Amino acid sequence: MATLVIGATGGIGEALARAWPEEALWLSGRNEERLDALATELKATPLRADLGYESHIRAMFDSLTLPLDTVVYAAGTALPEPVQGATPDAVRRVWNANYFGAMWVLKYGLPHLADGGRMYFVGARPELVTARGFGQYAASKAALARLLDVTRLEARGRTLTLVLPPAVDTPLWTQVGRTPKGAMSAGTVAQAIVADRAGAGQPELRVEDTAG
Amino acid sequence: MATLVIGATGGIGEALARAWPEEALWLSGRNEERLDALATELKATPLRADLGYESHIRAMFDSLTLPLDTVVYAAGTALPEPVQGATPDAVRRVWNANYFGAMWVLKYGLPHLADGGRMYFVGARPELVTARGFGQYAASKAALARLLDVTRLEARGRTLTLVLPPAVDTPLWTQVGRTPKGAMSAGTVAQAIVADRAGAGQPELRVEDTAG
Repeated sequence: MATLVIGATGGIGEALARAWPEEALWLSGRNEERLDALATELKATPLRADLGYESHIRAMFDSLTLPLDTVVYAAGTALPEPVQGATPDAVRRVWNANYFGAMWVLKYGLPHLADGGRMYFVGARPELVTARGFGQYAASKAALARLLDVTRLEARGRTLTLVLPPAVDTPLWTQVGRTPKGAMSAGTVAQAIVADRAGAGQPELRVEDTAG
Repeated sequence: MATLVIGATGGIGEALARAWPEEALWLSGRNEERLDALATELKATPLRADLGYESHIRAMFDSLTLPLDTVVYAAGTALPEPVQGATPDAVRRVWNANYFGAMWVLKYGLPHLADGGRMYFVGARPELVTARGFGQYAASKAALARLLDVTRLEARGRTLTLVLPPAVDTPLWTQVGRTPKGAMSAGTVAQAIVADRAGAGQPELRVEDTAG
């Protein structure tokens, strides 16, 4: 079973790389140093890519030597700021990480999926992110969800799963200033994805906090 | 009552410019020839702007000489193509017209609104646009709706109305190949917005076909 984890150098992506069953594993990230260290530790293949570039994403898939059974898109960024204070650089970074990167991964990744292959994309629950300062984050995650709805119609037979965790304790919150109280660990989300991959595919995976 | 119509050289925007009560009217569009002709005909002030540029949108609002009572964002484009055939140019054009232009209009337009001023944005009903080839269109309209949800929290006291017409007979459909049977006229949507502006503000204006 060949797997590619995109956004593997932190948060849910890194937890997933660590939790994934031992098999052919490719890890993609932008930070070369952290990526190489993690890939060495996990005996995985590092694929450096900046998700802001279609060309990087195309090259990443072109370099694969096996059809993929699983692709997990775990990249994401928040960079909160009010709409009236929106800055082009933050807007571009949020949209590239949360939407456009995922869109090019669909374009170039779908042809590389093995029969029965699946793709996972980490989304956001609207009720948790419709909040001041989260305009670009909430909008880009809404866009991702709708794009998956349309892509399922275009690529019948492929399972595209939108993962909807509650708030998760990841480095993303360092951009916000604090991690929400009771945030789920990235490892719990990773375990939920591993468990889902072993079952029948579904369009949406709501990860629930069962500890409480 | 001062009004700015963005995307005024065709479709719903042009119909709205024609239907709007006689008063101070600014019209914005990208096609200078059509814009100037329409502005001359309607005794309005033309403001040429390409919505793909934040700088154009900022300059457009900076050039206004009155606070605005109403802003209508009627720009939009579809350029359908499957996600697996997505091309950077079409993706950029759809997103600039449907989302990023609207986002910069919120940023620069909100400070220019008069007391009691309102903004209208033409959206799309999810059930009508979740269709093959409409990935970028559906996703960008979903993003717009969510951005308005967040911006309402940030700019309390401002009425931001998402207009949700059924399929409308506009030039947008020339990109698709055919206008859907029974499509509503752009003039009917324009009249619904004029009528809504005279009433109490609301976050969503569903334009219904009452002829059937």
